[in-house]
Amino acid sequence: MSDTKAKTNAGLQDVVAGESNICLVDGKLGRLVYQGYDINDLVGKASYEEVVYLLWHGKLPTQPELDALDRELKANREIPADVLTLVKALCESKSAPTGMEILRTVTSYVGALDADKSMTRENHLRQSAKLVALLTSVTAAIGRFTQGKAYVAPRHDLGHAANFLYMLHGEEADALSVEAFDVALILHADHEFNASTFTARCTVGTLSDVYSGVTSAIGALKGPLHGGANEDVLRMLMEIDDIATTADLLRDRLNNGVKVPGFGHRVYRSYDPRGLVLKRYAKELTAKVGVTKWYEMTEIAEAVVLEHFAKKGKDLKYNVDLYSGSLYNAMNIPVELFTPLFVMSRVSGWTAHILEQYANNRIIRPVADYVGPVDQAFQPINER
Amino acid sequence: MSDTKAKTNAGLQDVVAGESNICLVDGKLGRLVYQGYDINDLVGKASYEEVVYLLWHGKLPTQPELDALDRELKANREIPADVLTLVKALCESKSAPTGMEILRTVTSYVGALDADKSMTRENHLRQSAKLVALLTSVTAAIGRFTQGKAYVAPRHDLGHAANFLYMLHGEEADALSVEAFDVALILHADHEFNASTFTARCTVGTLSDVYSGVTSAIGALKGPLHGGANEDVLRMLMEIDDIATTADLLRDRLNNGVKVPGFGHRVYRSYDPRGLVLKRYAKELTAKVGVTKWYEMTEIAEAVVLEHFAKKGKDLKYNVDLYSGSLYNAMNIPVELFTPLFVMSRVSGWTAHILEQYANNRIIRPVADYVGPVDQAFQPINER
Repeated sequence: MSDTKAKTNAGLQDVVAGESNICLVDGKLGRLVYQGYDINDLVGKASYEEVVYLLWHGKLPTQPELDALDRELKANREIPADVLTLVKALCESKSAPTGMEILRTVTSYVGALDADKSMTRENHLRQSAKLVALLTSVTAAIGRFTQGKAYVAPRHDLGHAANFLYMLHGEEADALSVEAFDVALILHADHEFNASTFTARCTVGTLSDVYSGVTSAIGALKGPLHGGANEDVLRMLMEIDDIATTADLLRDRLNNGVKVPGFGHRVYRSYDPRGLVLKRYAKELTAKVGVTKWYEMTEIAEAVVLEHFAKKGKDLKYNVDLYSGSLYNAMNIPVELFTPLFVMSRVSGWTAHILEQYANNRIIRPVADYVGPVDQAFQPINER
Repeated sequence: MSDTKAKTNAGLQDVVAGESNICLVDGKLGRLVYQGYDINDLVGKASYEEVVYLLWHGKLPTQPELDALDRELKANREIPADVLTLVKALCESKSAPTGMEILRTVTSYVGALDADKSMTRENHLRQSAKLVALLTSVTAAIGRFTQGKAYVAPRHDLGHAANFLYMLHGEEADALSVEAFDVALILHADHEFNASTFTARCTVGTLSDVYSGVTSAIGALKGPLHGGANEDVLRMLMEIDDIATTADLLRDRLNNGVKVPGFGHRVYRSYDPRGLVLKRYAKELTAKVGVTKWYEMTEIAEAVVLEHFAKKGKDLKYNVDLYSGSLYNAMNIPVELFTPLFVMSRVSGWTAHILEQYANNRIIRPVADYVGPVDQAFQPINER
């Protein structure tokens, strides 16, 4: 309980919890900026690896700088034998852990076995690169094992996005899939003080380590109100499974107050700029592979939901989660991997924020408004 | 960036981040209250198990309620074979992971393999009881393995505190040690929105699971600005290792601006009431076992530090971490286990807060004050 008591804000909505150089989310204009660069200027021009460098260093890399990062990421693509054994055992367990639980456990495990615990920026950058590379390979391995397939070792002649699709499918993906996947990685890479990133900052605000920060963030992203939402859209469409009835069915649901996933955002009041880009790629890729059903159903959902809220005078927009499902499906990525894909991308943003937190640290410790009883008289157990 | 921009508060100091029934920290009066009960009314009267029940249920248990919790905790004392294998492998690794890294990994691993993921209060209470029991046994096992000793299986005829000391030492502890350890568990059980507890609430605010919340909290507690501080006092005294020179040496350090651990608190402006109780037990137990050196040196440190700051007009007080070192040392607990002991206790508070967060949830998502550049012109890599 504070002496200078402010209004309780349980979700910390609009509370300014720190300065940051990394990411500007302009909710009014529907604009997303990484270290000064509008995502629309990065998409299709820079690779995910360049964006990772940008988030960590505050500038786009020169060719030699990118080559050095690329070498480091590739050197960490191979999954160590003990980690692979752990991942396989978890995937094959009858308890059926989720991909997020496996990634959370692997991150903590790998951190425990990283002998260099020095708190230098250099070491933190090394650990961050290790996680970006390793969590990508582990996500591919989870995809293989949960489908009963054998692990595919990484290739070193492929870029980050292409190598993931290769490790997941055991064959090279087409150029458009690689481009679209690279773009999806860029679009999910950072989003200011979102719940998982803020959790990571809270964790390392005690001067805890990078692995603790990322482990916490994975745990937070796992929740259905955060990363979990990107699986919900495609699951819903797969459950409806019929283009003809989609509109009527969703109208009924909305009239009964059922929430349709993929719409609305706490920060964006205008369009979610990520959603616009993903829709474009989803349309192009689903047409190219010839599986347009989920994309078409998503377009119907968009129209129905927007119309429903427009009638109520609400200008609801779709968010980043609406079109990613049909896009990933066109790449033959199973729904169960959608939230782990989010980790593969956002780990670059989490580590950028962890580095920023270390550079100007203050422990994050708010207060509670105590609303419970006081001065309860203690009674021994035999008198209760 | 928020439209209604408030002042940036990087540490969220004095920001009221939610209502809570669980714990009142009255910094002005130096008072700590769990669910209405002053800790001074609980210490020596209620057991740690009763306090666990109190934190979770908001009332002290009747005898049948306590018996039921006791049975549940005892049923979870045994470490499953695969978990024990994991703990042993980590302890014996040449990377020498810390106890906190092992507890963080075990919590995530056990969560991944818990097949019942239902989001009911009943299931969350089951998972919480499992963690309170299991993390205690794992802490004892870490203590055994890192000393090159064999695992000692739990006993079911002993209370929570007594069983831990038995599992750590392979023999029953004396009554005063058991009482003092039980009291230490009670005193560390909760402390409102401290950094690790707030991190746990941020994690489950996305409706993520109990294990994710506790895994995050362990990661946050691991940092030297939070749980790590309780090891620092004894390490400092062991490094000085001489009663006669302690005062002069500490005075020199203070005059050179070196921080002495175990003093000051963001919330307490008066005495930390936990510290007062721990000092009493530390005095009594060190006298009884006849190893008074660290206790005496701690008293000297207290006098020197308070005098130093009093001269500057600052009323600095010692905190919960100052006397716990000499107390735990008198129980023959190695310094490396001090922060894991904190986990054993605080896990009850973390889970109480996780339950409370679920009961009235709102995702925790503040905003950042973006201070970086905007409108950077993109240049292709060959032009950088």
